[in-house]
Amino acid sequence: MSIWIAQRAPGDVAADLGAATGPLAGLRLAVKGNVDVAGFPTTAGCPAYASEPAESDAVAVARLKAAGATVVGVTNLDQFATGLVGQRSPYGGVHDARRPAYVSGGSSSGSAVAVALGLADIAIGTDTAGSGRVPAAFQGIVGIKPTLGTVSTAGVVPACRSWDAVTIFARDLNTADTAMAAMAGGPGTRTWPAGTPLAAPSAARVAVPAELPALAAGWAAAFAEAADRLRAGGCTVEPVPFATFLNAAKLLYEGALVAERHAAVGDFVDAHPDLVDPIVGAIIGAAGAVRASDLVRDMGRLRDLRDASLALLDGFDALLVPTAPCHPTIVEVAAEPVAVNSRVGTYTNFCNLFDLCAVAVPSGTVDGAQFGVTVLARPFHDAVALDLARRVTVPASSVAGPAAAAPLPPPTLPWPVHAGATAVPLLVVGAHLRGQPLEHELVTRGARWAGPVKTAASYELRALPTTPPKPGLVRTGPDGAPIDGELWLLPVAALGGFLAALPAPMNLGPVELDDGRWVTGFGCAADAAATGADITGYGGWRSWLAV
Amino acid sequence: MSIWIAQRAPGDVAADLGAATGPLAGLRLAVKGNVDVAGFPTTAGCPAYASEPAESDAVAVARLKAAGATVVGVTNLDQFATGLVGQRSPYGGVHDARRPAYVSGGSSSGSAVAVALGLADIAIGTDTAGSGRVPAAFQGIVGIKPTLGTVSTAGVVPACRSWDAVTIFARDLNTADTAMAAMAGGPGTRTWPAGTPLAAPSAARVAVPAELPALAAGWAAAFAEAADRLRAGGCTVEPVPFATFLNAAKLLYEGALVAERHAAVGDFVDAHPDLVDPIVGAIIGAAGAVRASDLVRDMGRLRDLRDASLALLDGFDALLVPTAPCHPTIVEVAAEPVAVNSRVGTYTNFCNLFDLCAVAVPSGTVDGAQFGVTVLARPFHDAVALDLARRVTVPASSVAGPAAAAPLPPPTLPWPVHAGATAVPLLVVGAHLRGQPLEHELVTRGARWAGPVKTAASYELRALPTTPPKPGLVRTGPDGAPIDGELWLLPVAALGGFLAALPAPMNLGPVELDDGRWVTGFGCAADAAATGADITGYGGWRSWLAV
Repeated sequence: MSIWIAQRAPGDVAADLGAATGPLAGLRLAVKGNVDVAGFPTTAGCPAYASEPAESDAVAVARLKAAGATVVGVTNLDQFATGLVGQRSPYGGVHDARRPAYVSGGSSSGSAVAVALGLADIAIGTDTAGSGRVPAAFQGIVGIKPTLGTVSTAGVVPACRSWDAVTIFARDLNTADTAMAAMAGGPGTRTWPAGTPLAAPSAARVAVPAELPALAAGWAAAFAEAADRLRAGGCTVEPVPFATFLNAAKLLYEGALVAERHAAVGDFVDAHPDLVDPIVGAIIGAAGAVRASDLVRDMGRLRDLRDASLALLDGFDALLVPTAPCHPTIVEVAAEPVAVNSRVGTYTNFCNLFDLCAVAVPSGTVDGAQFGVTVLARPFHDAVALDLARRVTVPASSVAGPAAAAPLPPPTLPWPVHAGATAVPLLVVGAHLRGQPLEHELVTRGARWAGPVKTAASYELRALPTTPPKPGLVRTGPDGAPIDGELWLLPVAALGGFLAALPAPMNLGPVELDDGRWVTGFGCAADAAATGADITGYGGWRSWLAV
Repeated sequence: MSIWIAQRAPGDVAADLGAATGPLAGLRLAVKGNVDVAGFPTTAGCPAYASEPAESDAVAVARLKAAGATVVGVTNLDQFATGLVGQRSPYGGVHDARRPAYVSGGSSSGSAVAVALGLADIAIGTDTAGSGRVPAAFQGIVGIKPTLGTVSTAGVVPACRSWDAVTIFARDLNTADTAMAAMAGGPGTRTWPAGTPLAAPSAARVAVPAELPALAAGWAAAFAEAADRLRAGGCTVEPVPFATFLNAAKLLYEGALVAERHAAVGDFVDAHPDLVDPIVGAIIGAAGAVRASDLVRDMGRLRDLRDASLALLDGFDALLVPTAPCHPTIVEVAAEPVAVNSRVGTYTNFCNLFDLCAVAVPSGTVDGAQFGVTVLARPFHDAVALDLARRVTVPASSVAGPAAAAPLPPPTLPWPVHAGATAVPLLVVGAHLRGQPLEHELVTRGARWAGPVKTAASYELRALPTTPPKPGLVRTGPDGAPIDGELWLLPVAALGGFLAALPAPMNLGPVELDDGRWVTGFGCAADAAATGADITGYGGWRSWLAV
């Protein structure tokens, strides 16, 4: 199968698994061969590129280990992460986990297949043009391609330094989310904006490509079913023109952007033409002849295409695409290695060039092929993509080995909060409760519902004559009662905007919960409270409304 | 003098000046010759580059005109904005406004000298490596180089598209600030982060270079005086290593970054070698031979230098530098046109490469030469740079013409707020008043003091037993009193962070002012207010403290 470049001794793995603590304890981690693992050479799929073992783990590996994951081995890949097929490696091509005549997808070929087969529970991939998503789709697993720069690339052999992301594969989204929470963040990573959304709206607006080029027979219907699942869940799904997205791929494959690959490993490739994969060598070698001013011009065109594409997404929360348009066989790739590779990347390669984030999930099967879809969103909207991916997923049939770990439970918080996105709690007790008339003021600000709570027994609730009707929560001290409410988590900038727009007589300040926590919550001005009817006895706004 | 490439008819100018309305009414605007002005060819200093008149104004010009400015003419420049000296133009070299043997500085040579001589009140420049700052320094005027992308570059001939900024010159900072407020923002400009600071702290921490290379005799002492003025105003000024800043300049002048210039106008230069300035043609022509992979590598080095440099500025609000290290004569520049040009840019050319903003201001004279300093700050910290520049400025001796407009009054709000930075008001009535113990909680969040106010006559003030002592403002209705307070303006993310950190029993919500406005302001929980002593009669916290 050529999945592994190197594996750790089973005894060492067992010992580490037994001793592990933390949120990822018990999970076996496979690491793509272009990412440093202490003690193993980082060959990037080219044995001549590195013969000395890495002295230390890449930051991403170290963070996963610190959270309890146990490294089981180093995985095969398209050499120098140059490819989407998994066939460009002197360690051998990797074939599909279920259908051996088909390619694994790449470049994170070994990582994806190791997870699909249950040889690992999570795996590190890298993704420049789709290498963390295409093999996830072919293998019926989940691939999270986070916003560029949110995971450290220290200790990773660059493919295109400007567009490389470290990614996570897992068989289910909760496990992948939990792993991302551990892996993302730390020194040198991008700062999360103060307005980073923490959830997708329940009635999200999702764009889909108006045209679906290169799709295999039956895949358009499978994609329509995915869109229908989002609609059934309350989303609006509408087509947008797709040409500007497709044109970015042309810049990558036919333009000057490929020079990034030469800057990364071109000196080695130029010096050792006989020691590299011929297809990879041809791509990277040719990239050395590109003129800098052509690259600058293509970067300008890329900015224009990005601006135009993001303008098309105005008013949408995310973009849904098929992850790949087709699943080629090993024979098909061998016959046309470059053309088939480019076609496979139709729906992936604009993503990093446009600084989008993506979550690739299984979405059923077509004639025995795994069909995958990807939810893409604006930079730092990873929590939005994650929520929508959860709603559209159809878990794939299992090919997991006997030792595979059970899926983790849903995390309390989406991974961006662990990585640095701000999330401040807000207690609501009235018109902002779920399903009440002002819930949308929180939802449209990227807030995340965090469950029901009760105040300490120190409050009164007054019915205020506002439009819409609202209750006023007043702290009265020991003679008060506990009041039902809900917690939301808000981006810190959204809390500021919410306060700045708050109408009289409402106010916001610390409110004590029945578990002793103090959180920011609603109150009201004293004069308004004094005139409102005392409805404390109902225990909460919903109970009073039900009367 | 070669200041002008073209001037509008005096009668047209007079008519427009008379009819103008808006904040810039009565101000004469000169526009650098690489920026579109409807009806004039945009030659960028090369007559063969453009012979047809521009059909419409550049966005920056249109916005200034919409605010009342009157275009008086199109100014000379170093051809294709390639130079810092003002001598590389077939329209003739531009000499200094006060000392004809000295260069004007460039590339915005004509714009700066027109303002210095009072032939215009404001002028548009462009700045890639210092072209909006060096001539400001030499001419004893103000140059604002805003954060990249905050002013539209639509209608501007690019020099290096990644690092070009449209700038403003004026004789005083208030006029320049007011012009920036009109010019910045609009379609295609960068979004201001929700945490954009609105002011420099009164006790700002300012870095200065630990080494001062290339400085002319006596200029180090003049720079030390500028630093002392900041210290006298309450700032801390401390040296930081400067090598990483200087190394970025080497990447620009000796590395591959210059390829940006070829991408901008290289096709024209290559096709018309005899029609371009020989020095400019040599620079841009050579830039066409740079390899793309070398550019990618230098961009990587630049990112590393930026990361290292910004790390050195951790804990500092801004960096103060001499704008230029020396003021060369026309003869000196003619003798060594490239070497002297590079030396002149020692303290300017890292700025845009590092995505910093800058304000260049006059800072006295040394042996008859105008000495200028520049305050640099992080991207979007333009209001911080502006505040500190105000504190360090020494207005230059006037060479203004008889028609020069009087300086404008200080704007109520710094220009970033007009351009899109969020600013939400917060009424404080106690411990956050200026000079009170918690003022720092606002200052460190980038808040801007906006003056004293009074509440409507509907409030009571209670003294609370908190640490530090605070008053509780309670709305009681028509039987209340007006209470003294102050308004601060906060970045919206800062308001959210402030609320999330607010301790009980305080709260925040709409408070009515005596002018009928409702603004977010302090209140307190009902149980705490009920126990506090009524100090309403004192009319405010300061009056009560004074008892």
